[in-house]
Amino acid sequence: MNALNKLLTKNNENKFVCVGLDTDIKKIPRHLFHSENPVIEFNKKIIKATKENVAAYKINFAFYEKDGLKGIENLTKTISFIPEDILIIADAKRGDIGNTSKMYAQSVFDYFKCDAITLNPLMGKDSVEPFLEYHNKLNFILALTSNPGSADFEKLKLEDGEFVYQKIIDEVNKWNVHSNCGIVFGATNTAELGKNMERINSLPVLLPGIGAQGGSLEDVIKTFKKFKRRNFLINVSRGIIYKSEGVDFAEAAHIELNNLNNQIDIYLNDSPAD
Amino acid sequence: MNALNKLLTKNNENKFVCVGLDTDIKKIPRHLFHSENPVIEFNKKIIKATKENVAAYKINFAFYEKDGLKGIENLTKTISFIPEDILIIADAKRGDIGNTSKMYAQSVFDYFKCDAITLNPLMGKDSVEPFLEYHNKLNFILALTSNPGSADFEKLKLEDGEFVYQKIIDEVNKWNVHSNCGIVFGATNTAELGKNMERINSLPVLLPGIGAQGGSLEDVIKTFKKFKRRNFLINVSRGIIYKSEGVDFAEAAHIELNNLNNQIDIYLNDSPAD
Repeated sequence: MNALNKLLTKNNENKFVCVGLDTDIKKIPRHLFHSENPVIEFNKKIIKATKENVAAYKINFAFYEKDGLKGIENLTKTISFIPEDILIIADAKRGDIGNTSKMYAQSVFDYFKCDAITLNPLMGKDSVEPFLEYHNKLNFILALTSNPGSADFEKLKLEDGEFVYQKIIDEVNKWNVHSNCGIVFGATNTAELGKNMERINSLPVLLPGIGAQGGSLEDVIKTFKKFKRRNFLINVSRGIIYKSEGVDFAEAAHIELNNLNNQIDIYLNDSPAD
Repeated sequence: MNALNKLLTKNNENKFVCVGLDTDIKKIPRHLFHSENPVIEFNKKIIKATKENVAAYKINFAFYEKDGLKGIENLTKTISFIPEDILIIADAKRGDIGNTSKMYAQSVFDYFKCDAITLNPLMGKDSVEPFLEYHNKLNFILALTSNPGSADFEKLKLEDGEFVYQKIIDEVNKWNVHSNCGIVFGATNTAELGKNMERINSLPVLLPGIGAQGGSLEDVIKTFKKFKRRNFLINVSRGIIYKSEGVDFAEAAHIELNNLNNQIDIYLNDSPAD
């Protein structure tokens, strides 16, 4: 099954939450330190507790790369725990000149066998092209991010009155010849999301920023409802995986994921569109 | 010695060439395939042949990451071959929200112990800040890159008449409180380089794009001469390391590096500024 179909299948089952595996040894429950590999023990239990109700997993490569060889081993093991039918997003934010991007694509798609990746488009089309050549994968391209720094360059106004991030969205629509593109749009920017839904067109949207960063789940879901769009992912990392510091951490993650699913269900189906 | 001092010391010795270790198993001499680890054998010999006359090494992380565990081992070994007084630039083009960028900084500066990194600033100041906290390191931030795609977003014109890449340069100057910032400016953009030298101010400049990508060494060097600036690096990767496909590849790299050094010396010292 190609990456887009994995996503749409889950979305059709009313699953929209992407669990972010930003696993930090400093934040995982202390009792796991008795196991041989605490990070792997943590990820295995989180995946087991959430896989039935999740839409996708997003693996933040930085959290693994910082441990060098051990981190790469942990990445590989973590990916092996995820069932075949669930989309795995490599949150790697890569982007470089063509011959280098080709190597990054090989790393994420061929070596780690992830289904999708996040890409930084600053360097333009040829920096993204080697990823686009993988027709069965999904490329989530940064448009407007969830952090305060999104104001520094992404929200600069151009001479034609549009913003840089809008120009990115327009270009991504052009790059989407093989239906293997999506965008990253920070859930902290709900006003901008509403104003750009038509511009976003049919692109799948990955939305970080709910929870620790302050984005409103209700506002985001109601926007998608209003525009009758159901191909999106709400990423939650810390809000799910660190819900409890105790021995019940996996059960707490399971419960929190279900709470979010229920909330999304309510916003999407029961409330009137405004 | 901190990273900036490593760079300035080499520049003061009239060394400006950065050798890019974009080592691709498909391009290295066939005779090396008899050795246990051809990539490492290649890098070791290239470094041995060039270390006396080089200003810095730039390691393109993508070329190693694509090999997973083996690649990380090769990265570590390659770094161990480089003498302590030579700047090692991790060409990784990282950038993410704060807590993630912190992990990338740990990977490049603490785990691999590189002196410098290339960063993608699209996500703004907070995406770069964790790197800036390493006062002894150097952060080369993408301003205007050497590839065709630099026209897509970096060269967009803003409402005030400036370009996105110029806004980036202005911000980097503000971020440079601890003298640990530089910029990446593609050598294929010589007209823009000349027009922006005052804006670049005292920031060290890393210039890719000479050679395979078509940038003119003469134009670049004469621009720096004209503005009496001597803190820069001309990156050459394929043009040096793949100069010969034969058993003489390391000697050929040595000769090509010396040729470039001689050319730079001529442009910088003997020719009149225009």
